[in-house]
Amino acid sequence: MYSADYLRNFTYRFFRKLGCPETDASTIADILVAAERRGISSHGMIRIKNYYLLYEKGRINLRPEIKTERETPGTAVVDGDSAYGMVAGKKSMQIAIEKAKNAGTGWVATKNSSHFGIAGYYSMMALEEDMIGIAMTNANPLVAPTFSKSRMLGTNPIAVAVPAGKYPPYVADFATTPIARGKLTIKGKQGESVEKGLVQDADGQPSTNPDVIKEGGAILPLGGDRVHGSHKGYCLNSIVDIFSAVFSGANFGPFVPPQVPFLSPPKEQVGQGLGHFFGAMRIDAFQEKEEFKNKMDQWIETFREAESIEGEPEVMLPGDPERAKEEESDRYGIELLDSVEKDLSDLADKLGIDFEI
Amino acid sequence: MYSADYLRNFTYRFFRKLGCPETDASTIADILVAAERRGISSHGMIRIKNYYLLYEKGRINLRPEIKTERETPGTAVVDGDSAYGMVAGKKSMQIAIEKAKNAGTGWVATKNSSHFGIAGYYSMMALEEDMIGIAMTNANPLVAPTFSKSRMLGTNPIAVAVPAGKYPPYVADFATTPIARGKLTIKGKQGESVEKGLVQDADGQPSTNPDVIKEGGAILPLGGDRVHGSHKGYCLNSIVDIFSAVFSGANFGPFVPPQVPFLSPPKEQVGQGLGHFFGAMRIDAFQEKEEFKNKMDQWIETFREAESIEGEPEVMLPGDPERAKEEESDRYGIELLDSVEKDLSDLADKLGIDFEI
Repeated sequence: MYSADYLRNFTYRFFRKLGCPETDASTIADILVAAERRGISSHGMIRIKNYYLLYEKGRINLRPEIKTERETPGTAVVDGDSAYGMVAGKKSMQIAIEKAKNAGTGWVATKNSSHFGIAGYYSMMALEEDMIGIAMTNANPLVAPTFSKSRMLGTNPIAVAVPAGKYPPYVADFATTPIARGKLTIKGKQGESVEKGLVQDADGQPSTNPDVIKEGGAILPLGGDRVHGSHKGYCLNSIVDIFSAVFSGANFGPFVPPQVPFLSPPKEQVGQGLGHFFGAMRIDAFQEKEEFKNKMDQWIETFREAESIEGEPEVMLPGDPERAKEEESDRYGIELLDSVEKDLSDLADKLGIDFEI
Repeated sequence: MYSADYLRNFTYRFFRKLGCPETDASTIADILVAAERRGISSHGMIRIKNYYLLYEKGRINLRPEIKTERETPGTAVVDGDSAYGMVAGKKSMQIAIEKAKNAGTGWVATKNSSHFGIAGYYSMMALEEDMIGIAMTNANPLVAPTFSKSRMLGTNPIAVAVPAGKYPPYVADFATTPIARGKLTIKGKQGESVEKGLVQDADGQPSTNPDVIKEGGAILPLGGDRVHGSHKGYCLNSIVDIFSAVFSGANFGPFVPPQVPFLSPPKEQVGQGLGHFFGAMRIDAFQEKEEFKNKMDQWIETFREAESIEGEPEVMLPGDPERAKEEESDRYGIELLDSVEKDLSDLADKLGIDFEI
């Protein structure tokens, strides 16, 4: 078990040693450890090796000049200058928040970026400013549109954070697919099959094989198949792609560069890097601050009263599981997979820093 | 078969005779007939009887004063003054578009409104202005959160329209549930069952009975069950509720007044009427207009090339089926169910206007 502080400090030292500026190393450490604390370990320490190897491949600029390329009072397009996605993402969300302070809402599309970790982190940055925060990103093409066997879209997550009054905030952070890539990998390693309605094989036929991606298969959009509304998941997923890439000038759909070092970006590029989209909406642009928060508290109380189905878990609100996991992580520590510990230890050796297993 | 013009003219005369101002009758007619042309007949002429009966029940104000209650350069809260939803909706979207002209983006939350027809109509209003349009609304509580048997949310649709260059626009318009209420009703009338993963019974158990709503059951969120990502559908669905009602001061979740005359609004009200949320984003706030449109054309071409699964229909883009249906409607006319023809004929008699069956 590791404390969040230990992991944050290690990650900071790691990226400093690699050559990142202090602020950037600190940003990366914050976001990776936030993922671990929230129980989204697929976006936590396990990514460090990948991030390192992407740098080694020359795909990451450790000293990026992140610039606003175009703007109006309430919008901006940001060039991430091949930064780590966390660095470009945090800066972009800060710009969205600043815009919202003046214009009521702020919207930023970011190009030339890379994998940015958990979308929820950026949406939650808005909470401290009494704003609703929105973050989304496109990602490696692994998802097939309804009726297609082509991998055209990423698992393209959306996060929305809404401030409340006396209660913790509402935080939704979800991939627009029924299952995330990371969970498939775990199932595969455990030799388990997955339920129908999550993935399809290379011919587009239903599959229960979690390793289907390696064999040319695809993840299905949220909804699974046409009868269960996969065309709606496909809509949602493609909206994230358009907002993240067409607004910003990043690569869209099948052209998004894979965020793993063992796959090269497609030869044909239709934009720069990977794209994100961020929004911040001042709650007092719509209601008196206290009125909004009281209403949101009432909303939360109402949904807490929803009756559970016998034999099923308690009804939850978006953000509940992650918050419970945060409390657990802070109390008992964070566990890492043996393979992650080994990778971190090897990487630490390579860079001449410490990592205690 | 009816021509769109005939139905539009009839609807206009109907609402004029009822007492609506010219512009409002025209708006209602446009939106109902747009639904018929696009093949979404559940939101077309079949609704006129309901709309009439809601007025008879005193729930609709035919001469509303729709007012902006609060605003910033890029946002507004609109009071629909108990108008027909189409009237409040169109006015609100117009405000969002005007705001976007000046501020880059415009966002309007509307309270004190009612059923507004197809969300797609409002999103598409933005296209003429070279803007992306967004529309969403909350609705009668029929949907149970993951693990719950309580009906807490509506089928809460989202529409997003994106302008392209030489190709028709991208138009996504979808309920955040795997199946819409209207389709369940049709299945029920045909004596057919529905697939698993769409609805549950009053105890929260999986069901294939399309009449389950009448027996205390619920529609599931997009995803169906937890394994297939229903918690993500629940997130999406509740975001629509929060944006539509908490931003505006409308009723949220289980307090949304049912939009049918035979069910009274819940005694406890936490806001005014039903709520919508609208957005307009100028494409040139992010990219040069032509650059954005070319990129969107390229996006469309790329997705047209997605390979189909053998034995399945062609891969479609959001908006394709509705556009195909529009062309068919304009060529061959619009068919109405016998029961709808009868209702319209009876209503026409009542108001002393003509309806030709």
